[in-house]
Amino acid sequence: MSGGAPASGLCLTTAPLTASSFAAFGDVIETEGRAHYPINAGTAQRYNDLARVEVTASGGRPLISILLAEPVAPPLRLRLMERHPLSSQAFIPLSSTPFLIVVAPPGVLDVERIRAFRSNGSQGINYRTGTWHHPLLALERRSGFLIVDRGGEGGNCDEISVEDRNIVVTL
Amino acid sequence: MSGGAPASGLCLTTAPLTASSFAAFGDVIETEGRAHYPINAGTAQRYNDLARVEVTASGGRPLISILLAEPVAPPLRLRLMERHPLSSQAFIPLSSTPFLIVVAPPGVLDVERIRAFRSNGSQGINYRTGTWHHPLLALERRSGFLIVDRGGEGGNCDEISVEDRNIVVTL
Repeated sequence: MSGGAPASGLCLTTAPLTASSFAAFGDVIETEGRAHYPINAGTAQRYNDLARVEVTASGGRPLISILLAEPVAPPLRLRLMERHPLSSQAFIPLSSTPFLIVVAPPGVLDVERIRAFRSNGSQGINYRTGTWHHPLLALERRSGFLIVDRGGEGGNCDEISVEDRNIVVTL
Repeated sequence: MSGGAPASGLCLTTAPLTASSFAAFGDVIETEGRAHYPINAGTAQRYNDLARVEVTASGGRPLISILLAEPVAPPLRLRLMERHPLSSQAFIPLSSTPFLIVVAPPGVLDVERIRAFRSNGSQGINYRTGTWHHPLLALERRSGFLIVDRGGEGGNCDEISVEDRNIVVTL
């Protein structure tokens, strides 16, 4: 066979995002089912320390940023996977926007181990240092996400194109 | 005069939250009017590094937490002011909930210098290290706020009651 579209590929279905199913890739930032304690004379509940924030390698410092993302409409073909070798990276939706999370374990990228998850919109995520992930995939509408990641010197983004692997994500 | 209510007090009106009016107390975390640059092949805009996150003093580390807060209904009397001598502290609304911010400059608390601001719901804030602030005052509904502050050893919360100063905040 020569030229033309690849004869085969991968079709990934998204799974609901849960702390246990996502544990190999990072943290789910949510209140549902989590421990909490009252503060401010009982007028508020604090759900403490929901993510392992790793940002200080090689003189790094924590950054708070906002991403305004255009939505995508599945099914969609994955373009690339990226990882941050020096830091974790958290995304938290600012207007309850559901989004897709596509990840693979740290180390040499193995496309067979790519997994896709679906946030219900009240769940954020924190990629562990080195976890491969597709750029953010917002659903339904243009919307904001808070980012907590690393500022500082040093190359902190590796990218690998997966365009020719014909990996399609469906809801 | 002895006993009874104080003869006088302070009545504070809230001002709209802007980066310049809040600069003495910390950062406004927002996209409106801020620089940004495209990422993810132009499908998203990043508003980078919107707050000065100070969390590593005395071996501290960044925490990501969520606060679920009951709303208040102004006018309201201030209970206390608190400050974190070892860290900044950011609050970002997760469902576009407007909230009030009551602050005073670092140093010896001067109630005459207390100021009140009103977030439009798409604005978060980051208290600079040592900035005095009232506990979070959500408006309208029970809602979530993302917190970015410090975990670690060391006393990082000073509180001063202002209940007897008769300071009332109105919208």
